[in-house]
Amino acid sequence: MAIKSLDDLFTHFLKDMYYAEKQVLRSLPGMIRKSETKELRQALEDHRDETEQQIENLEKVFEQMGMRARGVTCQAIDGIIEEAKEIMSEVEGGMTRDAGIIGAAQAVEHYEITRYGTLIAWAEKLGKKDAIQLLKANLAQEKAADAKLTKIAERVVNETAAA
Amino acid sequence: MAIKSLDDLFTHFLKDMYYAEKQVLRSLPGMIRKSETKELRQALEDHRDETEQQIENLEKVFEQMGMRARGVTCQAIDGIIEEAKEIMSEVEGGMTRDAGIIGAAQAVEHYEITRYGTLIAWAEKLGKKDAIQLLKANLAQEKAADAKLTKIAERVVNETAAA
Repeated sequence: MAIKSLDDLFTHFLKDMYYAEKQVLRSLPGMIRKSETKELRQALEDHRDETEQQIENLEKVFEQMGMRARGVTCQAIDGIIEEAKEIMSEVEGGMTRDAGIIGAAQAVEHYEITRYGTLIAWAEKLGKKDAIQLLKANLAQEKAADAKLTKIAERVVNETAAA
Repeated sequence: MAIKSLDDLFTHFLKDMYYAEKQVLRSLPGMIRKSETKELRQALEDHRDETEQQIENLEKVFEQMGMRARGVTCQAIDGIIEEAKEIMSEVEGGMTRDAGIIGAAQAVEHYEITRYGTLIAWAEKLGKKDAIQLLKANLAQEKAADAKLTKIAERVVNETAAA
């Protein structure tokens, strides 16, 4: 599909995020299983629930636009998730692997933060007021998840991993 | 290579960033060529120069560790750059393409921001004081580049693209 207008581009990025969130949802159980730190496992489990909500929020945005929710392959998230898998398989275990899992999960969060930021900026210019609220709710959750991971790294994981 | 310690993981992420920065340096000329907004072109040209410095900074960190600078394939940055290329080819041109280029460039910045954040946190735990300074210099440039792109989007590109 040729993208001719900012509205087309918004739709493209929305589909991209819909695909991305679904891939994240699929990848989280593996990350949870490999996490040894209780706080990290809990944070990832909470984020799995949030991701389900976020997918529903994106479906509502599609609905507002009179469209069926549909994803397009997002090579960025695929690469980020592949890298996360690689880290999980190459690190032998323990706190070092947990440190790697946090680094990988934060790369996912940051991708989503930038994409939601872009979608919100465009939605504002395009006057998509209802979409803005839903996208901002998703963005706030991604930022909170990122901040929680930083805290877990600083307070629990990195100290032990460096010991 | 099996990653056994936080020090090994730091080295792995450092190699990953070295590869990533080099790929970014290779991808910037194409993004500059496709940008129509003067401010965007200038920002990307400035960032190309900064990226060259950042690569040198990473080489200094390798040197401090008594290692030869060497990259490892970073699937995350490869995916992010592939997506940027896809956006540039699918958007027909004008301000809409510039809006897409900004979105793509900000995904690159955010990946680098999260990775430098992680590397700095680990360097602090590992007592790599000289490395911290160099990594913080790179992080500050990435954050400034991201903020500059947001400003260009808000002040120049999005308004026109939405018109």
